[in-house]
Amino acid sequence: MSGKRSLLERLAAGPVIGDGGFIFALEKRGYVKAGPWTPEATVEHPEAVRQLHREFLRAGSDVMQAFTFYASEDKLTDRGNTAGKKIGVAAINREAAKIAKEVAAEGDALTLGSLSQCPSYLEGKGEAKVKSEFRKQVEVFTKEGLDFLLCEYFEHVEEIQWAIQVCKESGKTVAATMCIGPEGDMHGVSAAECAIRMARSGADLVGVNCHYDPFVALETMRRMKQGLDAAGLKPYLMMQPVAYHTPDAGKQGFIDLPEFPFALEGRIATRWDMHRYAREAFELGVRYIGGCCGFEPYHIRAIAEELSAERGGKMPQGSIKHDMWGGGLTMHTKPWVRARASREYWENLKPASGRPYCPGMSEPDNWAEKKKGHM
Amino acid sequence: MSGKRSLLERLAAGPVIGDGGFIFALEKRGYVKAGPWTPEATVEHPEAVRQLHREFLRAGSDVMQAFTFYASEDKLTDRGNTAGKKIGVAAINREAAKIAKEVAAEGDALTLGSLSQCPSYLEGKGEAKVKSEFRKQVEVFTKEGLDFLLCEYFEHVEEIQWAIQVCKESGKTVAATMCIGPEGDMHGVSAAECAIRMARSGADLVGVNCHYDPFVALETMRRMKQGLDAAGLKPYLMMQPVAYHTPDAGKQGFIDLPEFPFALEGRIATRWDMHRYAREAFELGVRYIGGCCGFEPYHIRAIAEELSAERGGKMPQGSIKHDMWGGGLTMHTKPWVRARASREYWENLKPASGRPYCPGMSEPDNWAEKKKGHM
Amino acid sequence: MSGKRSLLERLAAGPVIGDGGFIFALEKRGYVKAGPWTPEATVEHPEAVRQLHREFLRAGSDVMQAFTFYASEDKLTDRGNTAGKKIGVAAINREAAKIAKEVAAEGDALTLGSLSQCPSYLEGKGEAKVKSEFRKQVEVFTKEGLDFLLCEYFEHVEEIQWAIQVCKESGKTVAATMCIGPEGDMHGVSAAECAIRMARSGADLVGVNCHYDPFVALETMRRMKQGLDAAGLKPYLMMQPVAYHTPDAGKQGFIDLPEFPFALEGRIATRWDMHRYAREAFELGVRYIGGCCGFEPYHIRAIAEELSAERGGKMPQGSIKHDMWGGGLTMHTKPWVRARASREYWENLKPASGRPYCPGMSEPDNWAEKKKGHM
Amino acid sequence: MSGKRSLLERLAAGPVIGDGGFIFALEKRGYVKAGPWTPEATVEHPEAVRQLHREFLRAGSDVMQAFTFYASEDKLTDRGNTAGKKIGVAAINREAAKIAKEVAAEGDALTLGSLSQCPSYLEGKGEAKVKSEFRKQVEVFTKEGLDFLLCEYFEHVEEIQWAIQVCKESGKTVAATMCIGPEGDMHGVSAAECAIRMARSGADLVGVNCHYDPFVALETMRRMKQGLDAAGLKPYLMMQPVAYHTPDAGKQGFIDLPEFPFALEGRIATRWDMHRYAREAFELGVRYIGGCCGFEPYHIRAIAEELSAERGGKMPQGSIKHDMWGGGLTMHTKPWVRARASREYWENLKPASGRPYCPGMSEPDNWAEKKKGHM
Repeated sequence: MSGKRSLLERLAAGPVIGDGGFIFALEKRGYVKAGPWTPEATVEHPEAVRQLHREFLRAGSDVMQAFTFYASEDKLTDRGNTAGKKIGVAAINREAAKIAKEVAAEGDALTLGSLSQCPSYLEGKGEAKVKSEFRKQVEVFTKEGLDFLLCEYFEHVEEIQWAIQVCKESGKTVAATMCIGPEGDMHGVSAAECAIRMARSGADLVGVNCHYDPFVALETMRRMKQGLDAAGLKPYLMMQPVAYHTPDAGKQGFIDLPEFPFALEGRIATRWDMHRYAREAFELGVRYIGGCCGFEPYHIRAIAEELSAERGGKMPQGSIKHDMWGGGLTMHTKPWVRARASREYWENLKPASGRPYCPGMSEPDNWAEKKKGHM
Repeated sequence: MSGKRSLLERLAAGPVIGDGGFIFALEKRGYVKAGPWTPEATVEHPEAVRQLHREFLRAGSDVMQAFTFYASEDKLTDRGNTAGKKIGVAAINREAAKIAKEVAAEGDALTLGSLSQCPSYLEGKGEAKVKSEFRKQVEVFTKEGLDFLLCEYFEHVEEIQWAIQVCKESGKTVAATMCIGPEGDMHGVSAAECAIRMARSGADLVGVNCHYDPFVALETMRRMKQGLDAAGLKPYLMMQPVAYHTPDAGKQGFIDLPEFPFALEGRIATRWDMHRYAREAFELGVRYIGGCCGFEPYHIRAIAEELSAERGGKMPQGSIKHDMWGGGLTMHTKPWVRARASREYWENLKPASGRPYCPGMSEPDNWAEKKKGHM
Repeated sequence: MSGKRSLLERLAAGPVIGDGGFIFALEKRGYVKAGPWTPEATVEHPEAVRQLHREFLRAGSDVMQAFTFYASEDKLTDRGNTAGKKIGVAAINREAAKIAKEVAAEGDALTLGSLSQCPSYLEGKGEAKVKSEFRKQVEVFTKEGLDFLLCEYFEHVEEIQWAIQVCKESGKTVAATMCIGPEGDMHGVSAAECAIRMARSGADLVGVNCHYDPFVALETMRRMKQGLDAAGLKPYLMMQPVAYHTPDAGKQGFIDLPEFPFALEGRIATRWDMHRYAREAFELGVRYIGGCCGFEPYHIRAIAEELSAERGGKMPQGSIKHDMWGGGLTMHTKPWVRARASREYWENLKPASGRPYCPGMSEPDNWAEKKKGHM
Repeated sequence: MSGKRSLLERLAAGPVIGDGGFIFALEKRGYVKAGPWTPEATVEHPEAVRQLHREFLRAGSDVMQAFTFYASEDKLTDRGNTAGKKIGVAAINREAAKIAKEVAAEGDALTLGSLSQCPSYLEGKGEAKVKSEFRKQVEVFTKEGLDFLLCEYFEHVEEIQWAIQVCKESGKTVAATMCIGPEGDMHGVSAAECAIRMARSGADLVGVNCHYDPFVALETMRRMKQGLDAAGLKPYLMMQPVAYHTPDAGKQGFIDLPEFPFALEGRIATRWDMHRYAREAFELGVRYIGGCCGFEPYHIRAIAEELSAERGGKMPQGSIKHDMWGGGLTMHTKPWVRARASREYWENLKPASGRPYCPGMSEPDNWAEKKKGHM
């Protein structure tokens, strides 16, 4: 690891590309259970976790994010979850770290350990208890020598501030992303104010992850940036949104859409959506650009391809099997398919759903104030 | 292999479950190039091919289909493809067979080697040349001891008859599926007549694969069955459709839809669509039920779960991480998401696309007779 | 009336343009009740009926169709309808005829009286009773001197044959249109066979009205024409479809769509749809081209404009206020609206519904076999 | 007129119901030209204008709004319009007033004369010239004794203030509605500030008309009300939106949608949308509730039916032909259609467009900043 440039050095040089969503990808592959969404696969099926890491590395990810989402002890034993007892918080986090390091070493990638919101916070157990949950994970991350830490998927700014504080104890670089939208956190704190508080708590990178599609998330980032600029704060900006189109999501994001989590297919973004996302994020000043639920390796590759010039012409390994903008179609048998081998074609296409009995948007459940009138 | 029950024994006992689409899944994972769509990944990245096999095995597939799609020598050297020269037809097919056997042995699965339509046919090179292309692959399959053979993805019944004839030389069980829709093959032969000819050429299983969604494909199967019944022929019925909704596809299937192949996301079927597919296929009398492009492991698992009773109560290994009909959601944090843990909920949902600026259907390219009027 | 060319003379010379739907237009204007759909407005509010006739005349209609839809005595007293008793079948039909004649005289239009299917048929009261119902109307039409007769909106070919026979007694030209789709009548008689029977019963014009949009109706006409051609019969072809897009309608047409009759707005055809309808109908050989429910005067004007060349360059009076293909927009204030003043613009537009929470198609009620799979 | 209660008396007693859109309704009937949109039909075809007035009266309108939209002299001679020269501003306005008075006398309706924005303003001709244009119309209104005046369809608050000032010279009650959306006027003045300025200029009623659907318009009204409340102003609130769903409209409203004006059909609101509109408007405190482009008589009747209780149980005359909430369907022949005779059915229906090849929303032309990402 000694020779690797650090995260901050890389950010100073240009955009850093994150990875995609392990939980959702591994659910589809058969290794994660929807509902609890915990990562015991690191112990149960390390080969599956390792392969997914490799695919993201190949797609251009600069960071191997250890698969420690929701791996706090209280979550691993919550609502009948047996992973916490049978396997244990330490083992799950440790194996995650080992796999991340192993694959990172196959390229030039950094590693990170992440904390997410924990049941103890929602149950009102208080700062000391919540921080102790976080420390159990951070200890492993430190011991395993992961390169930096990430607090991600927090709905309340108060809790993420505690998480940042625990992470800072390690002396490592700390990134912090909340799963909020343009309207701010669940306690009514605005997106701008959330960003300010995360930065003031010591986060070196600040932004959002999960819950919204890239374009809604960009609106949240815009508000965060305005707040940070106004407060004179200059953390790096980071975002890892979901790969599902969510123009109709409400305050809690895609969780509340009726399609969550087993009928989201129609909302999956194309690689071309990701080109646009990468470009718009970069132009806004975001420097850590990755994905969350729904991001598959080819989505990450699209980001890497779009930002190739900004990254010194570097192309992902996986582009050996992908000519930009559909170029591979020139090798197709049918002339009218070969005619689709152009940027203009794919950028202008409005893809049909093949589901004429289904609508374009849904009304979220739990919509405090159901949107009326427009049907 | 000695102890394994043969394909025909299994079919006699109940439904056999196929696997999903390697080409499309591995394209998203970064190992296959869209356009040529050839399977040299068996040599270049065996670990990725092996992992996908394992996922399908875990999802309930009874057959490990060696990844030999489009692996005829003429295709591997077609239109600038270098795989044929650099790696070679024998090596690609041999490694595919080895990986399939390796993973099959981890469970109780059968293996198969497949042939697909080849450029020599379209170029009019004649029966002898086309058959010699097929023999190069069949030799490898025989030498490697694959359990049975499959001729799949043929648009012309004449060519698949030649392929069946070559396969029959091996003495193995032969399955045959064309990529045609209800309107029949590209030379105007009806679906019923295609089925009859495949059966008369010696295919033990007859049906369709690729090009259409399960429900359009079921209509084709219905016509094939009527033809076979009328002719007094009784091959087993087999189908492996795509996982993309294609109510609007024309004579050449999803290839002609403007979204092919890089903007099909909105059309991806849900696991609930697959429950319905499995049930309707079984009721029609189809006994080999699998998938093609777009089928991910979780789609195959849905088929296995739906037909569990018909398979003696057997559940796929992957169902350890999946409670039927959304049951895992009872462990979710939000009460309104827990309320979605029911069959009724998912069966009745009309999932939104999240793309209000996009339509429900597209007009295929190359539509001889563009559908007019309805917009 | 003496100097007017007859219907058959006009048909021999070129396309004759019908009128639009009185029932639906007058329901929106406040003079007809949805449910019974009977035409007592001819007595209650003659000024409203007269004005609508004038609008169709102005739009290019060659025929003023007396507003006698569902004006059989048994229908006027059916299910609590009081019009039959309070006003009476004779008065309603007579006033309808008078208004039609009055407005026809303001131009060069013909007049017609029409019969529709009657409750006595459905109640199984038999040929004699049903024919006696029809005779009550035909007597009025004859006495009032309407130019020709029309049997329209019949779901059973047997009943329309009886109606044609009654009309033939008058010695007048008789037209006959059924409200069936491509699948034929409610007793399972094919569309082709229905056409043949209507022609053999003596109808001079044969075709369809109501229940389906122009493009579904054209498919029915295609089948009717094939049947007639095969049988060596040469009646004129006539069609008056609804102005609502119904690609999803089942065997009973738009009645069964969940939107019928109070939420059909999103399905209303544009004037450009009508250009296409007129052209395709003419090319198929249809010579009496009009509309039914949902057709407003501007829809008829679009037909007249499209077929102007085929009608000797004649343009409807109402085109004083309408430059073809959006030409009037050249006088608009905004440059980007002026840019829409072209045929190419309007022919290629795929108009949005403004209802992102609504689907493109519905499943009909009473669908014997619900279409499954595609959502 | 002596016995009639004045507008302000009526407003004090309960909601007053406006009428619908003459321009669009008469365009479809063949008497108004799309593009210039001027009302010379008052002279050319008074019977058509009179009939439409009667239909609105019958539907429950309390006000007969003389058809004087865009009837300023500079507009009547703008861009090749010949109505100004051939017929003249005075005649057009005078005949409009006469027809309105004639029909109003058939019921208990008030009459109004209206001014709209004029080309002289946009051409920068200044206050004196613009006001002189307005005075030409107001003189006629005063001479004809119309009950009150309305300034409607102004995009710039400055111009409507001048119009209000001219109207105030007459001593009559003055209403003022701008065609702006939630974002305010074309000069960047907020909706709240526009409302305040209209009230301070002397308008007795303040609000919006045209350009947006009822639900977008309600959002504008909400902002206007907040501004007025904060400023301590208490004019009556008035709104007359379009009957086209416009969730996707930009700053200039439905004009900018690609479907304007000849392919808006799919966006037409149902009567049930109007029930909801009426209820929400009343609850917000709006007391003059009417419609603009696209509102047909049955839309107005739905408002009158919804607010019947608030209007002392008064029902519109046209409800003789309309049982509330689909009640007339109990008289339908088919049992599954009779089953639709309920409020619950129609309130919950998400009506399909019958256009599966068309999207739910469009991108407006002239979108300064095209909405990106969501497709």
